[in-house]
Amino acid sequence: MDSDFLSNVELYFVPRSKTNDLGSDCIETITLSGDEFNHVVRVMRHDTGDELFVTDGEGNIFKCRISSIGKSSLELTKEETMRYTDKYANITFCLPKLKSPDRFEFALEKCVELGVTNFIVYDADKSVSKGDKNDRWNKILISAMKQSLRSYLPAISSVKNLEKISLLEGEKIIFDQEAELKFTDFQTDLQKKYFFIFGPEGGFSSRELLALKSAMKFSLTPNRLRAETAVISAASILAMK
Amino acid sequence: MDSDFLSNVELYFVPRSKTNDLGSDCIETITLSGDEFNHVVRVMRHDTGDELFVTDGEGNIFKCRISSIGKSSLELTKEETMRYTDKYANITFCLPKLKSPDRFEFALEKCVELGVTNFIVYDADKSVSKGDKNDRWNKILISAMKQSLRSYLPAISSVKNLEKISLLEGEKIIFDQEAELKFTDFQTDLQKKYFFIFGPEGGFSSRELLALKSAMKFSLTPNRLRAETAVISAASILAMK
Repeated sequence: MDSDFLSNVELYFVPRSKTNDLGSDCIETITLSGDEFNHVVRVMRHDTGDELFVTDGEGNIFKCRISSIGKSSLELTKEETMRYTDKYANITFCLPKLKSPDRFEFALEKCVELGVTNFIVYDADKSVSKGDKNDRWNKILISAMKQSLRSYLPAISSVKNLEKISLLEGEKIIFDQEAELKFTDFQTDLQKKYFFIFGPEGGFSSRELLALKSAMKFSLTPNRLRAETAVISAASILAMK
Repeated sequence: MDSDFLSNVELYFVPRSKTNDLGSDCIETITLSGDEFNHVVRVMRHDTGDELFVTDGEGNIFKCRISSIGKSSLELTKEETMRYTDKYANITFCLPKLKSPDRFEFALEKCVELGVTNFIVYDADKSVSKGDKNDRWNKILISAMKQSLRSYLPAISSVKNLEKISLLEGEKIIFDQEAELKFTDFQTDLQKKYFFIFGPEGGFSSRELLALKSAMKFSLTPNRLRAETAVISAASILAMK
């Protein structure tokens, strides 16, 4: 069933791989262990009979009730299944590594809260920071998904450079302070595949711009924006569409 | 004169109080000292004859050239004055103190980059953090103004509670996930005075909601957003209007 959006609830995450067909109506119980178990029992101090919500990160949110609490895990009984669609399934945000990991991670978190579910991280020619932090990024994705009560765990992957992205099938969009078209006027066709490509602090190199020569260009504001501000601003405008 | 927006330049800040009628066409030189002087000479390693831009934080940006460099100050010759209008002069963002100063400061910085020029910080009933950090906030305002090549130094003030804001003359607007009106559909009348009021992590208290009972309510996204995400999202949408 399609459902209203939730507010003021606690959302926990149990990956489908851990549960063997969690979404099936036949499965009536869900087991919570590890960090999620600790949070329910030690932080929130829940008891048998309390209500909480679980997502599988694949579009389902289950309204559950605690049926029993063990020493290191607890059992939940499913009372209701809410099914959501991933509105921005065809949109991928392509983010350069930034000099400041804090700014990069903040942008990532905000994008998830605003509904972006696909990310590619690339090393821009002018990126200063190198090295992937997949564990850390995944923690941010999970936490932001739960925080914003979303039911799709975003996917994130890394590529070596922008050329790899330019070869992918789909419309490429870049953001440029001096572009004539305003992003707010852009009619997003949610059935179509898009790559929204953001530049690093120093902008795109001429080699990168060549690889992106057929990309559509949009401006976000007439003023210069920091790299991570452009990312969050585009996600905010997209979320309102 | 009204001017195009700048890109790819260095912008420095010299408050008008330091220069005695800096904006007047009669004044042809500007003195840079302190941190700004150090940045020009030691970090950017500029020399006599180089071009740079200075704002007075009151709507003017001066295109200048370095005429002489001393031991602790340098002289600039004004070559052009660009005058900007403060599009959002009538809009005040009212921000609660947040539990995480990082998140609060990030929201403040992003708002400045996106064009917001008036802030009131308040202690919400559910604010966890207390204490003003005016010096630190002012540094963030100046840095973000220069970074985004803006010419208005934002004003920031603090009040004890939301009731103080509710008594100010102007339209009050609050953001609520469950509001029926979407903020993107809101027709902002830039001649009218508005207070955009954001709640803290825990939301408004019932006492605060009573003080705001005549406020207009808008939703930003159907999903729950963190306090600072709502702030940045509203500023992003406003910046596109």
